[in-house]
Amino acid sequence: MSGHKNKYMELALKEAEKAALRGEVPVGAVIVAGDSGAVIAVASNRVMEDRDPSAHAELLAIRAACAALGSERLPGCDLYVTLEPCPMCAQLISFARLRRLYFAADDPKGGGVENGPRVLHASSCHHQPEIYGGIGARPAAQMLKKFFQARR
Amino acid sequence: MSGHKNKYMELALKEAEKAALRGEVPVGAVIVAGDSGAVIAVASNRVMEDRDPSAHAELLAIRAACAALGSERLPGCDLYVTLEPCPMCAQLISFARLRRLYFAADDPKGGGVENGPRVLHASSCHHQPEIYGGIGARPAAQMLKKFFQARR
Repeated sequence: MSGHKNKYMELALKEAEKAALRGEVPVGAVIVAGDSGAVIAVASNRVMEDRDPSAHAELLAIRAACAALGSERLPGCDLYVTLEPCPMCAQLISFARLRRLYFAADDPKGGGVENGPRVLHASSCHHQPEIYGGIGARPAAQMLKKFFQARR
Repeated sequence: MSGHKNKYMELALKEAEKAALRGEVPVGAVIVAGDSGAVIAVASNRVMEDRDPSAHAELLAIRAACAALGSERLPGCDLYVTLEPCPMCAQLISFARLRRLYFAADDPKGGGVENGPRVLHASSCHHQPEIYGGIGARPAAQMLKKFFQARR
């Protein structure tokens, strides 16, 4: 993993911390223009605050990036997210034609990329980004563990 | 299928027609309170107009219903949609804890409920609504066919 990729995942982790402070499951996402390295959108989980079951970090980041670029597709862009995307977000990543997906912690229970229905690997999936798992997995997983332990 | 259920699917079909007139893939959705029969939200596909790859009829209807009810869950509500939901919308239907899903036309290429990754049937799926397919399938399928034929 290059220093640049670390930098973006660190930014996603900072977003995840913000979500934890709001009482949300700590997941953060960043969308980056692949060529320039410019950050297009950052977001974190807002399901509880927005009372919106779709308000996952990835979905909010993709919507914000599409609004910023005026396009329903993000073909030259890469997504960094601190947790393996769920099936909803995995399908949206495909719809948005994102170039690369970097995710940190695995999610054996709720993930939809390498776990569960493995949406991006289905034969019916029209666009599969390059997928890189495990980038910054340790701090992301620790943050999630701490969050859920405090809620028990 | 009771008359009431027909009524709601007809409303969803009218929403789908509105989407077609805007140049969108014609899919419409309606969310109904199961006990009172009150319509909580109606929506149709707005991906192109909103430049938002997440703006499927179901996702917009669920977000609108959650906003109307002030809750990120819709446990007593039923969703009527003119096309089999994609994997993104199928997962959101589960997150929103919808009681029943009624859909019209099958979608062998893009569907995610009875086709593709069959998200609601995955062992990792925490909540599966009751699922009723084929309700009003003919007019819904005809509308989609006409739309795609005109675009060739």
